[in-house]
Amino acid sequence: MSSAGSPPCQCIAPDVVLGRNVRLNAFVNLYGCTLGDDCMIGTFVEIQRDVIVGSRCRIQSHTFICSGVTLEDDVFVGHGVMFINDRHPSVAATLARTWQLERITIGRGASLGSGALILGGVNIGAGAVIGAGAVVTRDVAAATTVAGVPARILAPRQ
Amino acid sequence: MSSAGSPPCQCIAPDVVLGRNVRLNAFVNLYGCTLGDDCMIGTFVEIQRDVIVGSRCRIQSHTFICSGVTLEDDVFVGHGVMFINDRHPSVAATLARTWQLERITIGRGASLGSGALILGGVNIGAGAVIGAGAVVTRDVAAATTVAGVPARILAPRQ
Amino acid sequence: MSSAGSPPCQCIAPDVVLGRNVRLNAFVNLYGCTLGDDCMIGTFVEIQRDVIVGSRCRIQSHTFICSGVTLEDDVFVGHGVMFINDRHPSVAATLARTWQLERITIGRGASLGSGALILGGVNIGAGAVIGAGAVVTRDVAAATTVAGVPARILAPRQ
Repeated sequence: MSSAGSPPCQCIAPDVVLGRNVRLNAFVNLYGCTLGDDCMIGTFVEIQRDVIVGSRCRIQSHTFICSGVTLEDDVFVGHGVMFINDRHPSVAATLARTWQLERITIGRGASLGSGALILGGVNIGAGAVIGAGAVVTRDVAAATTVAGVPARILAPRQ
Repeated sequence: MSSAGSPPCQCIAPDVVLGRNVRLNAFVNLYGCTLGDDCMIGTFVEIQRDVIVGSRCRIQSHTFICSGVTLEDDVFVGHGVMFINDRHPSVAATLARTWQLERITIGRGASLGSGALILGGVNIGAGAVIGAGAVVTRDVAAATTVAGVPARILAPRQ
Repeated sequence: MSSAGSPPCQCIAPDVVLGRNVRLNAFVNLYGCTLGDDCMIGTFVEIQRDVIVGSRCRIQSHTFICSGVTLEDDVFVGHGVMFINDRHPSVAATLARTWQLERITIGRGASLGSGALILGGVNIGAGAVIGAGAVVTRDVAAATTVAGVPARILAPRQ
């Protein structure tokens, strides 16, 4: 249910850049990000500063997209997917401001299954498929399917 | 904390059918679904169109229930459980409207652990127990316990 | 984006005890808990009754902290972390009120990766590191790193 008419149900910072025909569901929290045309953003989604989302992407409910992530066009992100931009997070590093952002890129037309975790520094190629619940610790080549904890190659996509 | 008095904290579409004595927590997003008597729906839960929830079910926080899911009576759904009604999601299939909904049924008195992922087409029998974090890719017989990624049988329930 | 000026976006019960300089993001649901000084609580976080959170803890988005959990100072909790205070949940036990709360303690300076699941009765020592997506079923000693489903020791921290 879109709640475009109910501002208290959405937090959209003034610096968010929205393409044409973007559908934002209830209870989203967006700031400093750029969304391409015809995207759909599900309920309970947070997208942080400097994230770039291509056109026609579908971001399903309960997903978190952190700073440093770029999604190319036509990427499908399932429910409850978490991106991670720091492999060794700690309060000490946060307070000392010594942590370094690790970028993530998801190639055109890729599909990330629900509950997948994408670690910092990972690049996922165009058309790749990430299984539900996979923990992706390494790069995934284009048109390749991975699954498991940690994620391993299942089979090249036909 | 129930926020029944604070409409902006809940999105409940007019087509939702609620039984008697249903407790809805803050920040829920419900549309087109039917909930039986005495259910409890936790915070940050989304339940989609055509979902049927039996009586006395407890749906804990951060859980997503997609179209095509039926929960029989007395089902316990932990926190952050994600149901999946399409094993091969993609933006291309969504735009072409070629994807087919895969149904899921959860039998009476079953218990789904927190963080479990239930794939499309799966049927879980009455009284079955799904361990926390399990990725359930196949049917689970009644009174059976499964866990792991992918989920495997641990032991018949005593 | 903090929404301190938008009360409809936050549910904070009157019995919550907040230390100094606590930052609460949008769409949080807090009741009956105590948060120490300088904590940060992310978006879509629920913290239940009787939870004690030490000073300078960082609780990232989409995390659920149940009754029975104590976080010491300087604990980092990633995104989508779920704590569990009942290893055998069921509707029958809930209705019969026979279930028993299993407590969890997280030691000072520990770091819990995104998507981790922490089972009831587990104690995690000071400075321990829990990998993303780990399902923690046993105690973790101080300064130890674990990962996987179920979580196993990777290596002592240097």
